[in-house]
Amino acid sequence: MEHPVKTLGWAARDPSGVLSPFKFSRQATREHDVQLKVLYCGICHSDLNLSKNELGFTTYPIVPGHEIVGSVIEVGSKVQKVKVGDKVAVGGMVGSCRKCDQCVNDLENYCPQAVYTFNGVDSDGTTTYGGFSNILVVDEHFIFRWPADFPLDKGAPLLCAGITTYSPLKYFGLDKPGLHVGVVGLGGLGQLAVKFAKAFGTKVTVISTSINKKKEAIETLGADAFIVSRELEEMQAAAGTLDGIIDTVSAVHPIQPLISMLKPHGKMVILGVPDKPLELPVFPLISARKTVAGSLSGGMKETQEMIDFAAKHNILSDVEIIPMDYVNTAMDRLARGDVKYRFVIDVAKTLKVE
Amino acid sequence: MEHPVKTLGWAARDPSGVLSPFKFSRQATREHDVQLKVLYCGICHSDLNLSKNELGFTTYPIVPGHEIVGSVIEVGSKVQKVKVGDKVAVGGMVGSCRKCDQCVNDLENYCPQAVYTFNGVDSDGTTTYGGFSNILVVDEHFIFRWPADFPLDKGAPLLCAGITTYSPLKYFGLDKPGLHVGVVGLGGLGQLAVKFAKAFGTKVTVISTSINKKKEAIETLGADAFIVSRELEEMQAAAGTLDGIIDTVSAVHPIQPLISMLKPHGKMVILGVPDKPLELPVFPLISARKTVAGSLSGGMKETQEMIDFAAKHNILSDVEIIPMDYVNTAMDRLARGDVKYRFVIDVAKTLKVE
Repeated sequence: MEHPVKTLGWAARDPSGVLSPFKFSRQATREHDVQLKVLYCGICHSDLNLSKNELGFTTYPIVPGHEIVGSVIEVGSKVQKVKVGDKVAVGGMVGSCRKCDQCVNDLENYCPQAVYTFNGVDSDGTTTYGGFSNILVVDEHFIFRWPADFPLDKGAPLLCAGITTYSPLKYFGLDKPGLHVGVVGLGGLGQLAVKFAKAFGTKVTVISTSINKKKEAIETLGADAFIVSRELEEMQAAAGTLDGIIDTVSAVHPIQPLISMLKPHGKMVILGVPDKPLELPVFPLISARKTVAGSLSGGMKETQEMIDFAAKHNILSDVEIIPMDYVNTAMDRLARGDVKYRFVIDVAKTLKVE
Repeated sequence: MEHPVKTLGWAARDPSGVLSPFKFSRQATREHDVQLKVLYCGICHSDLNLSKNELGFTTYPIVPGHEIVGSVIEVGSKVQKVKVGDKVAVGGMVGSCRKCDQCVNDLENYCPQAVYTFNGVDSDGTTTYGGFSNILVVDEHFIFRWPADFPLDKGAPLLCAGITTYSPLKYFGLDKPGLHVGVVGLGGLGQLAVKFAKAFGTKVTVISTSINKKKEAIETLGADAFIVSRELEEMQAAAGTLDGIIDTVSAVHPIQPLISMLKPHGKMVILGVPDKPLELPVFPLISARKTVAGSLSGGMKETQEMIDFAAKHNILSDVEIIPMDYVNTAMDRLARGDVKYRFVIDVAKTLKVE
């Protein structure tokens, strides 16, 4: 379908996931829409997985990108939230039904008709294209205000990695000073989970497969303790010490040792999606009333709250800024876990518009 | 060790689980102790499993029984809670450390030093003997007051099956009018889960493997709906309709279809302990922020509250009253699920004291 707003992005055309320049168009700015020039866009694991159709529901061509910060270049006649020139952000969603139980309770992210920012089905039936592109047109409800003087590049990952870790810390009550939170996996999500948990005043223990991350976890990120998950003695010594766990690992992994680390009534929240079911030991759950739960991103109100909280506490992602034409190498490196901690594409300066 | 209070019980001597008369002794009534004559004692699945050492930590001889109602025959000098002649009850615990985080928060059931009523290790190092016996001596903290005129025989199962279902309905917020609760499995626990959930004002759907239980579930127990878990169409039609699930099934069973029945943010609470880990599908948890948790019995304060609530709402177990010497047949029938819904031994009238 041809729309009036000429747009240039980078798209994958097949399950190789290889991205290359892609010309398309976006709809004109409607009454409630905001048109923005994309400045920076983070790269999340789901950009990688979906580009390669690893979850089986990719529509090609696919233009990834859902950790987007930009500058408003046009607003619809009824837009009240922002004005031209404002810095704004867009996360994983650009639409929802706006009337279901989830939507009316500010939980648009759990709306059954949520429209994802890329590889989603828009209200007109077309496939959505994400932030690996120069322009976005989005309903103002799904636009976030960006705090003055808050860095854009290091802030971009907050839009997915940030809210994905902030929301469960809040919802599961792990945001109280004095609590002890475990963060499993120290990637794009894990580093922000540590920073938010510390800002909430909790004690933080990082649990990782690699001792190599210890120094950074403690000295740079501010974690209080570090445990190598393969060291059974260390794990057992920490049994029953955690009020909650934020588990960011996407691979299939044993959760019994993690559940053992929880105090009675402790809560383990899984954020990564392994490609097979995990083994759930029941007795440890029952004997100490423990919880295993999942969590997905956050609603619009909570995401704005998270951005404002991050700005107040200077919580930003550690990032590696890359040009657009480095994206395929970045994707390869991301697949190997070779990034500290998030790639962010400098879209405005490096995406060439012919 | 020889104690002054001569006691007669029925014990299993080996993993056959066959019970027969067993003479032993209990300690004298100390300052804070209550000595009671056992009137009725329910039979729970754990009495069966532990008699046969199916969990691997049985000490023989084992005297089962932890759904106990009786009459006070002696009190220690400092006992304030009850007096001789009072009707009282004892559940799954007869001791705890009284000073850990769990104990000071009225969650003695999660105390790491909890002393179970039978097959437990008492503070003096001896093995505890349960309610399949004529006399119990218990610290008053672990004694419950029995409401006047509240039936003893049909009330006995409240002490384990009752509190095991009441506590998670309360803790996980499934006690609010207007909510919709699923109860999986209609045995000793399931029937009481239905009755408590209805008394809390929730809508209740029973999920069972057997259509044969439908009439009884709806007409006798008061459930609002009944779904046969093997009927995939029925299950799918009910997807996303439940605020919470109380899962009483002890066998290994698929939980994905049950998780699918939860609304977003719904909570599934597992009460039965399968002998293998269950398969936990992660994506359904994450995509709708669902919870899978366990729960074990309840604390002393909450158990008393549950008994008082049951008396107020006339919640009792459907029972089959049996004589003591029928216990082995009852255990066999229980293993086959052939009871509606709980065997209760008329201990006072049928346990012969030579």
